[in-house]
Amino acid sequence: MMFNGYNEEITRYIRGWLQEDVGSGDVTTAVTIPQGHESKAIIHAKQGGVIAGMPVAQMVFEIVDPSLRFTPLVQDGQRVEKGAVIAEVEGSTHRILTGERLALNLLQRMSGIATRTRTFVEALGGLPTRLVDTRKTTPGHRMLEKYAVRTGGGANHRFGLYDAVMIKDNHIKGAGGIAQAVSRARAAIPHTMTIEVETENLEQVDEALQAGADIIMLDNMAPVLMKEAVQRIKQAAPHVIVEASGNVSLETIRDIAESGVDVISVGRLTYSFESLDISLDLNAKKEG
Amino acid sequence: MMFNGYNEEITRYIRGWLQEDVGSGDVTTAVTIPQGHESKAIIHAKQGGVIAGMPVAQMVFEIVDPSLRFTPLVQDGQRVEKGAVIAEVEGSTHRILTGERLALNLLQRMSGIATRTRTFVEALGGLPTRLVDTRKTTPGHRMLEKYAVRTGGGANHRFGLYDAVMIKDNHIKGAGGIAQAVSRARAAIPHTMTIEVETENLEQVDEALQAGADIIMLDNMAPVLMKEAVQRIKQAAPHVIVEASGNVSLETIRDIAESGVDVISVGRLTYSFESLDISLDLNAKKEG
Amino acid sequence: MMFNGYNEEITRYIRGWLQEDVGSGDVTTAVTIPQGHESKAIIHAKQGGVIAGMPVAQMVFEIVDPSLRFTPLVQDGQRVEKGAVIAEVEGSTHRILTGERLALNLLQRMSGIATRTRTFVEALGGLPTRLVDTRKTTPGHRMLEKYAVRTGGGANHRFGLYDAVMIKDNHIKGAGGIAQAVSRARAAIPHTMTIEVETENLEQVDEALQAGADIIMLDNMAPVLMKEAVQRIKQAAPHVIVEASGNVSLETIRDIAESGVDVISVGRLTYSFESLDISLDLNAKKEG
Amino acid sequence: MMFNGYNEEITRYIRGWLQEDVGSGDVTTAVTIPQGHESKAIIHAKQGGVIAGMPVAQMVFEIVDPSLRFTPLVQDGQRVEKGAVIAEVEGSTHRILTGERLALNLLQRMSGIATRTRTFVEALGGLPTRLVDTRKTTPGHRMLEKYAVRTGGGANHRFGLYDAVMIKDNHIKGAGGIAQAVSRARAAIPHTMTIEVETENLEQVDEALQAGADIIMLDNMAPVLMKEAVQRIKQAAPHVIVEASGNVSLETIRDIAESGVDVISVGRLTYSFESLDISLDLNAKKEG
Amino acid sequence: MMFNGYNEEITRYIRGWLQEDVGSGDVTTAVTIPQGHESKAIIHAKQGGVIAGMPVAQMVFEIVDPSLRFTPLVQDGQRVEKGAVIAEVEGSTHRILTGERLALNLLQRMSGIATRTRTFVEALGGLPTRLVDTRKTTPGHRMLEKYAVRTGGGANHRFGLYDAVMIKDNHIKGAGGIAQAVSRARAAIPHTMTIEVETENLEQVDEALQAGADIIMLDNMAPVLMKEAVQRIKQAAPHVIVEASGNVSLETIRDIAESGVDVISVGRLTYSFESLDISLDLNAKKEG
Amino acid sequence: MMFNGYNEEITRYIRGWLQEDVGSGDVTTAVTIPQGHESKAIIHAKQGGVIAGMPVAQMVFEIVDPSLRFTPLVQDGQRVEKGAVIAEVEGSTHRILTGERLALNLLQRMSGIATRTRTFVEALGGLPTRLVDTRKTTPGHRMLEKYAVRTGGGANHRFGLYDAVMIKDNHIKGAGGIAQAVSRARAAIPHTMTIEVETENLEQVDEALQAGADIIMLDNMAPVLMKEAVQRIKQAAPHVIVEASGNVSLETIRDIAESGVDVISVGRLTYSFESLDISLDLNAKKEG
Repeated sequence: MMFNGYNEEITRYIRGWLQEDVGSGDVTTAVTIPQGHESKAIIHAKQGGVIAGMPVAQMVFEIVDPSLRFTPLVQDGQRVEKGAVIAEVEGSTHRILTGERLALNLLQRMSGIATRTRTFVEALGGLPTRLVDTRKTTPGHRMLEKYAVRTGGGANHRFGLYDAVMIKDNHIKGAGGIAQAVSRARAAIPHTMTIEVETENLEQVDEALQAGADIIMLDNMAPVLMKEAVQRIKQAAPHVIVEASGNVSLETIRDIAESGVDVISVGRLTYSFESLDISLDLNAKKEG
Repeated sequence: MMFNGYNEEITRYIRGWLQEDVGSGDVTTAVTIPQGHESKAIIHAKQGGVIAGMPVAQMVFEIVDPSLRFTPLVQDGQRVEKGAVIAEVEGSTHRILTGERLALNLLQRMSGIATRTRTFVEALGGLPTRLVDTRKTTPGHRMLEKYAVRTGGGANHRFGLYDAVMIKDNHIKGAGGIAQAVSRARAAIPHTMTIEVETENLEQVDEALQAGADIIMLDNMAPVLMKEAVQRIKQAAPHVIVEASGNVSLETIRDIAESGVDVISVGRLTYSFESLDISLDLNAKKEG
Repeated sequence: MMFNGYNEEITRYIRGWLQEDVGSGDVTTAVTIPQGHESKAIIHAKQGGVIAGMPVAQMVFEIVDPSLRFTPLVQDGQRVEKGAVIAEVEGSTHRILTGERLALNLLQRMSGIATRTRTFVEALGGLPTRLVDTRKTTPGHRMLEKYAVRTGGGANHRFGLYDAVMIKDNHIKGAGGIAQAVSRARAAIPHTMTIEVETENLEQVDEALQAGADIIMLDNMAPVLMKEAVQRIKQAAPHVIVEASGNVSLETIRDIAESGVDVISVGRLTYSFESLDISLDLNAKKEG
Repeated sequence: MMFNGYNEEITRYIRGWLQEDVGSGDVTTAVTIPQGHESKAIIHAKQGGVIAGMPVAQMVFEIVDPSLRFTPLVQDGQRVEKGAVIAEVEGSTHRILTGERLALNLLQRMSGIATRTRTFVEALGGLPTRLVDTRKTTPGHRMLEKYAVRTGGGANHRFGLYDAVMIKDNHIKGAGGIAQAVSRARAAIPHTMTIEVETENLEQVDEALQAGADIIMLDNMAPVLMKEAVQRIKQAAPHVIVEASGNVSLETIRDIAESGVDVISVGRLTYSFESLDISLDLNAKKEG
Repeated sequence: MMFNGYNEEITRYIRGWLQEDVGSGDVTTAVTIPQGHESKAIIHAKQGGVIAGMPVAQMVFEIVDPSLRFTPLVQDGQRVEKGAVIAEVEGSTHRILTGERLALNLLQRMSGIATRTRTFVEALGGLPTRLVDTRKTTPGHRMLEKYAVRTGGGANHRFGLYDAVMIKDNHIKGAGGIAQAVSRARAAIPHTMTIEVETENLEQVDEALQAGADIIMLDNMAPVLMKEAVQRIKQAAPHVIVEASGNVSLETIRDIAESGVDVISVGRLTYSFESLDISLDLNAKKEG
Repeated sequence: MMFNGYNEEITRYIRGWLQEDVGSGDVTTAVTIPQGHESKAIIHAKQGGVIAGMPVAQMVFEIVDPSLRFTPLVQDGQRVEKGAVIAEVEGSTHRILTGERLALNLLQRMSGIATRTRTFVEALGGLPTRLVDTRKTTPGHRMLEKYAVRTGGGANHRFGLYDAVMIKDNHIKGAGGIAQAVSRARAAIPHTMTIEVETENLEQVDEALQAGADIIMLDNMAPVLMKEAVQRIKQAAPHVIVEASGNVSLETIRDIAESGVDVISVGRLTYSFESLDISLDLNAKKEG
């Protein structure tokens, strides 16, 4: 899912999530729908937005029953209007209904995130600034939500605590200063890994610069201060990346971007969300 | 968590969620904070709302390190003001920081759900109607989100496909009518299990009544039609429970309740949400 | 298996059970049977009885090797005579022998349960009483044994502690009386869930009735007392279900049923059992 | 459990079995018993027999809640009379009731096996013959059932397909004869592993002897034939072990033993069984 | 793998090992190689040696993507020259690269072990002595490494602590002597299991003989002493197997073998090793 | 282990590895050592070298039995002489013997890697060059082996395919050139992630430089060519890191380092190894 490699972990999650919903069995379907009953179902958007999660929905139905045929009719990242049919599923009615709720719960949430991300991206229209997410994702859904952010036109911040160094206030206190924190980190980490330092004022920006940070984050600074910080950094070390962060909203993001930062990270892309309303309708096809 | 029994499954989920965030290790903390460093951290609400998830946050820190001491300062279900300190955690700084993000991600989401639920419950003030959730929960979080709904003052609908029969349009078509669907179900299920039938008009209500449904759901009916349905049902079979469902909002819920239904189910309690803003601050305590 | 839905959990159990028997490998077969050797095996009953577990046996062979071809020759629930061939398996001799013992161990136990259940059902011949099982099942085999009971013509009681409320003596003491126990339960559980109360005498029956129990169990009562209890209950609340329980045997079940109870639960359907003798014979087919 | 080593696997099984029964929570207890309620429970035999499974019952309660105190009052292998109190459990009422059913289901089954085994052992009284079990055990319970057999005074056959070679009819056909089967096996297996050959007549016994089998099984032979076989084997190769097998019952076992075989294997020790009736009673202790 | 049975456990290991390398995804491939790109890759030896692990490499690629086509060009156990192409893999370039490193890491290690084993086997050329491994294997790789030893021409010692009794110095002390240790063991273990006793001098050899050990190990004895021990044992009990052990090297193994022992166990077959240098080259085939 | 965070994954591995060795139980110990027997064991080096793995050995004994007391007498990274006692373990003799082999197998391998790494580090004495490992680690042991490399004085390359981009020949071909590969990668990856490009000649070095690679690897270049490459890179982009790779040995490493590269990666640190000979001796302490 995350990139197009090997999906072992998502497969394992989907199995657990099916277990959560289906448990010892879908009683209603088992006792009302005849054995061998087949259907063709359509999945449609009851609200306009940006679709994300087609490959995940497909995996859900494949895991429930490899003989179900799932056909996506739109691609992830495409904006659809209210009423659009976005996919079809054909095969055993029992199995389609077993997978229905999980597939929809995932599609709705991922499309909701992609739709909101698209709105933020549009607010940056014409600027080179990169919009990224944070670690404020739903537990168990990080890779899916980061994928939904990319689908919506954003980019990702680090994946977890393991793949980049992010030195915050607590680490600075623990290490005894930015200089010490960065130099200890540089000595210990792989040369393939980068160091980001979170700063709250220009003094800290200067310390981070001198310490050799690869990325400097400006946390909750006023736009005018950000502008000043960006200039100092770019003059002293053009390859250092500048990131803005802290309660960024649709109203404030363009001002922040115009300060010249390279990257803006926005917690609320994944932290709160509106699901996109998507549902599945069955059309009885034939009895097997 | 869910009720006060045995928590094996939540424990397993928390381990997986920690793995998702921490992966091969919290690099930053490991390389900047000295070994044996201890802290006392406070968790505080940056926004007013109803708190839910204290026992889950406690489990996160216990799983990360059984020697951390977590002290809740408010109880689940309590409404707090912006700025309230809601818990303390003491012990190894490394381990507090390892668990921080997961504990907050869970507290924020669960408290957001409890807060929204409380708003809906207040809209029903003075009426006997029960507010319940749906299966539109976040995959992997169903038990936690259903707990958050209870914490906010709501009640739960069935837990999954396994613990009650819910006959919807597709099942009626598959079975050849409401009468057949209900009688087949009754013959096959345990005598401890109930049958709910989803209806869209008065004819279906009558059929469900005659078929002997235990619960009749009125799906997306106009309030006046609901009122009529409730009267028919209660007259014919006083022990049958009547549930209203379908795009219920804060604006419409009171009108729906006044139709006399026993239960109103609301998807958006868990389907979209605003996380409650909660954060953790460290105070270095001593170096071990 | 349990109903015809998604079989994730049984699949996982079967993998574990194969591991238990096969461990690091079937040494004997590996060192004596040539690579590529193929066989056709028949599975036959060495004793007459009711067959249960065909789909489970099929899953065992499919999990061991998806290329094995398993053909059931009788259907679950069918009574067979001694000597009947009930299934065939074709394919790799190595793999058939790897799955043989587990498939037989399951078929033998499940058919034993179905056969005994059929005997009890026949003892109720002509009466409307429903025969059900209990939670006295073999750990790890609950869904399979409950399925075997249904296959034999019985029905199921609740699946576990999670899907219905069953208030016993200890809960009554803990809550301070039947009235309190039932009203607390009703307030806390989903409206889709039922409450059963276990009673030992007519006073308790009356209390349970007034408290609004959905199901009243008569525990170890004499038939004449049961008759009285049934009359009281059905007069006061015709929709309340009456269940008899407690050391029910083939000798006593008809008398109990004639008291007019709706349901009789019988622990010994799964609690002790005679396996049905079933075995597998190989006929070498060809060397690959 | 199995011997007194490391119990990882049984721990994992018990967690799964608890999940099977408790699922999303013990609803009844949660809603009727007050938080913090404590009890002392006794476990008593409602039927006389040989007790087996104390350490397993203890593990169940420890896994449910490490603060429960389980005190065995009899040792595994001890015969008790009807009514004997065999253990006590003290602590949280919620947690005792959560573990109750699983602990009893295990104790009942294991004690049933130990009791039956003791009967067979007594039938061999005074003879040097060893009574052993087979692989006809309940899936997932092999180690527990083999332990119960030892507890009842029997011994074990191999644990699975992985720890000894057992050449049966099918293997002989596949290999082209006993001589070929044994010599191929000897060449391939560790020198620490033994080879048993199943024989149906004296010709096969002679072949097995010449092939150098370590153990020769006499399958379903008449006692007089067995006697002849034992003499031939012991004369030719005194260190070769002779095992009798095939539909051994309490009536026939002594005659078989008197033929001079070293070992008799009996499938029905674990293949069918009568659970020993054991139950748990709570005495409210105090409310915490 | 281990023998040709059921591979559940190795499958599970391979999934975990892929997870270790691939984690959240193969970023480089995902972002540089176009979707649908297909290749044919060759795997070739950059060093001469004995190949082992073909079926394991095949499983790796099948688990990554069942549509990859893996064609082995040599068989396990075959000696190849530097430069030999030993296998081909065709299909999705993304998936081939995802599995590449794990497949090579396994092939290199297993072939290294087979190559070294072959050298020791050749040092025994013409003698009947059996070369076996020990439990000094890499954690998680025991079955693969024992298979590699067999592939190189050696045989296996016991698989773990569970499938044979090996009485060492500590056990002798604990039991109070060789006689007690052996007799206690014989009484407790299945009759299919053997007892090996480790001895350091001729007195212990005599004790082990009298106690009835099945296998006597001569630990670190001088060749002349070994010769004496072998003679005593073979005279007294020809069916007892004699094993030599303790820092056996290529220089000393022939002398040890000529003492007449049946088996020589060599820790360094798996305890230290030189991987065989093997690599994979891609040839772009077509874009899908 | 890896850094000092949360050890969930290593715990899970250790449980699996114990299962591999112990299986259904340590038969020998169970049947020869009396219940309750206690010992004090010492772990000592039978060969001089650099110790690595103490915390892992400690985890093994803690997982086997939390009541065992493990006391390390040297710290990881310390060089010890032949004969040095490096740790003590006290407690149940059964449990010490259960964990012995796994603890030693890990200590021996990890110390072997640390010892070899130290030798390479010493060969770089006085130079600023960083020695790093590769992904040629033992499957399942990557984090442990990378830790052992750090313990020996080296540093780590990326942890897997997920935490850095490494563009090799195949990726360049797939993307249509270095420029395209780097620019596609830069657009798709988090801004916290770096891009390394593998080059074989000066033209590729120039392309990588212009494409904006963060790290340039010189693969198998002659020292004189490396020197030239380093100069070009450092002149054009001083913050770009230069890495040398390809069949680096103790003989060649110093020459390579003197070319001015920042980092040298050496596969054979983990790819082949000599275990350090370490063993455990028991001293019976008392019988419990």
